[in-house]
Amino acid sequence: MAKKFAELRAKMAPEAQARVEAKAQELLAEMPLNELRQARGLSQKVLAEVLHVQQPSIAKMEKRTDMYISTLRSHIEAMGGQLDVIARFPDGSVKISNFSDIESDLLQQA
Amino acid sequence: MAKKFAELRAKMAPEAQARVEAKAQELLAEMPLNELRQARGLSQKVLAEVLHVQQPSIAKMEKRTDMYISTLRSHIEAMGGQLDVIARFPDGSVKISNFSDIESDLLQQA
Repeated sequence: MAKKFAELRAKMAPEAQARVEAKAQELLAEMPLNELRQARGLSQKVLAEVLHVQQPSIAKMEKRTDMYISTLRSHIEAMGGQLDVIARFPDGSVKISNFSDIESDLLQQA
Repeated sequence: MAKKFAELRAKMAPEAQARVEAKAQELLAEMPLNELRQARGLSQKVLAEVLHVQQPSIAKMEKRTDMYISTLRSHIEAMGGQLDVIARFPDGSVKISNFSDIESDLLQQA
């Protein structure tokens, strides 16, 4: 896998690599979970209904600074998104596959 | 923040947006934690020393399919990387800022 990653990058000119990296950074907004929910046009009430929890649970969750990856995945999927866990290094980024959503992958294949 | 994100994207031509998205996906290797460690040229022993744990703890951790975000962050930082938690939607991606590493941010400012 590491070799494949290196090969992919090597195929691009250094200028192209730098440009893509800069554009990718520029496009990436950064916000907390409550702002993301608002940006998706969702209320705490609606999200609570999708996740089958009470509204105060959503409020509490949005204030947390640590949680299980599976909990965060459920929360983001309830907003219609997908969770990506990325390890960023000076020479490139890698998506960590340990936490892939096996259940929804199986559903997509079915 | 949501408005700013939309503005950034709107400034780019649709072709450019699609091209950047495709390139970003192409550049992103996907692998489990043990392969990432090997790709960084690190042994379980070395990583265990950096994290002040026993080597079997690293082996065990690399097999886990769920963990606290803070645990994963420590693991990735021990490899010299940074953790990014991304919510990906069909119309763009957002970095979730709830889990920012406050301690290292403070250290960088000092």
